Amino acid sequence: MRILISNDDGIRSEGLLALEEKLQSLGEIYTVAPDREQTSMSHALTLHRPLRVEESGPRRFAVDGTPTDCVKLALTGLLPDKPDLVVSGINKGPNIGDDILYSGTVSAAIEGTLLGIPSLAVSLVAQKDFSFAVAADFATALAKRILEKGLPPGTLINVNVPPTPAHEIKGWRLTRQGKRHYADHVVERVDPRGKKYYWIGGDDLGFAHEDGTDCVAVYEGYISLTPLHVDMTNHASFEQVKSLMFPWP
Amino acid sequence: MRILISNDDGIRSEGLLALEEKLQSLGEIYTVAPDREQTSMSHALTLHRPLRVEESGPRRFAVDGTPTDCVKLALTGLLPDKPDLVVSGINKGPNIGDDILYSGTVSAAIEGTLLGIPSLAVSLVAQKDFSFAVAADFATALAKRILEKGLPPGTLINVNVPPTPAHEIKGWRLTRQGKRHYADHVVERVDPRGKKYYWIGGDDLGFAHEDGTDCVAVYEGYISLTPLHVDMTNHASFEQVKSLMFPWP
Repeated sequence: MRILISNDDGIRSEGLLALEEKLQSLGEIYTVAPDREQTSMSHALTLHRPLRVEESGPRRFAVDGTPTDCVKLALTGLLPDKPDLVVSGINKGPNIGDDILYSGTVSAAIEGTLLGIPSLAVSLVAQKDFSFAVAADFATALAKRILEKGLPPGTLINVNVPPTPAHEIKGWRLTRQGKRHYADHVVERVDPRGKKYYWIGGDDLGFAHEDGTDCVAVYEGYISLTPLHVDMTNHASFEQVKSLMFPWP
Repeated sequence: MRILISNDDGIRSEGLLALEEKLQSLGEIYTVAPDREQTSMSHALTLHRPLRVEESGPRRFAVDGTPTDCVKLALTGLLPDKPDLVVSGINKGPNIGDDILYSGTVSAAIEGTLLGIPSLAVSLVAQKDFSFAVAADFATALAKRILEKGLPPGTLINVNVPPTPAHEIKGWRLTRQGKRHYADHVVERVDPRGKKYYWIGGDDLGFAHEDGTDCVAVYEGYISLTPLHVDMTNHASFEQVKSLMFPWP
């Protein structure tokens, strides 16, 4: 078996090193990851400039691009063969609720899925004192099962692991994408030359406590597994949207 | 009524100018758009550096960031009031099938949706000889209806308009996200200093001819409207994914 590892925290991130170490037991590991942090790059693809690739060890490549660039390059020519699995992470911080749409970690797994390879994204729900052992062990057990049984077409698994010690983890739950709340406000400042500049804000205000969501699962001490698909169509809304429509031309 | 316009082709794009002109009939227009082309930036958000904003006319702002940055800034402090609608586009080129996941145009509308404002993305399915009149007229008619009747929560409309003259448009169809085919292969080159670099490839090989999709609708001469939602959960896959699982811890 061949496994491709990527992430958005960059090739030197401890979360990626933890995955490399544990996933070795399942087969040959290739790593293609950004050469620096690429958090919140979502599914951005670099088309307006070429990419540089630096070998940083056997079957290890650092790319001066986004997580999506890394997986795209890896699967369309950089690697000698297609991998059997793509694992992205372990991200430093949660990817739950709306985070999913901004996340580079999830997007690396989306790119694997779009290119036809079973993929999973793994995140550790912590802000500091990162201990990746539990998440790496769980990811390895899940990867083994996916290598045996595959995934539904067009579907990836988004895994979020609570920051608690192994014996405090209550188990796992299949979840749906929840809703986080942020205090969104622009931070306006003035530079040393008197010109204004802006920081995007976003204090964490918690999440909607709705049963069955990724947010609630990790809050209650469970590992959250959310099956995500690359089809964003809201089929359930068709009737309501149809009622908006008008004759044309 | 107040309408926010953004895009990913940049504030000088003719597609954006066409929207500004036509949407004026519905209310007060604000434009917050990237200062240069930001194609395929997906939902990337700039968090590691501040953003600069340049006024380029009354209620017109150019931002040195991504489409998502533009909408986030606009809705979280740059504009004096929240708009009633976000319209993104008119993009030069289609945003159908897998394009949706890479598209900056669609992501600007996704950001509007995440922040609670009804939003639509508009794209012209052409590669050259862009004529935006039909797309701008249709977008204005649709915007009027959305301002009157709203949209389902968490749902945006992704509009793709064929490049044909107005009298050749056959009408509109509600569609689901289809599947495009690309010949994905890395292009490897050597720079003048003898070092390798890589371009992401991707020749257009057409699309899956599946009924009901955005790809088929525009191919057959219809305006395609796809209701997209920000919840990427694949609910239908829960049973199959459950069968993968194992006792833990």
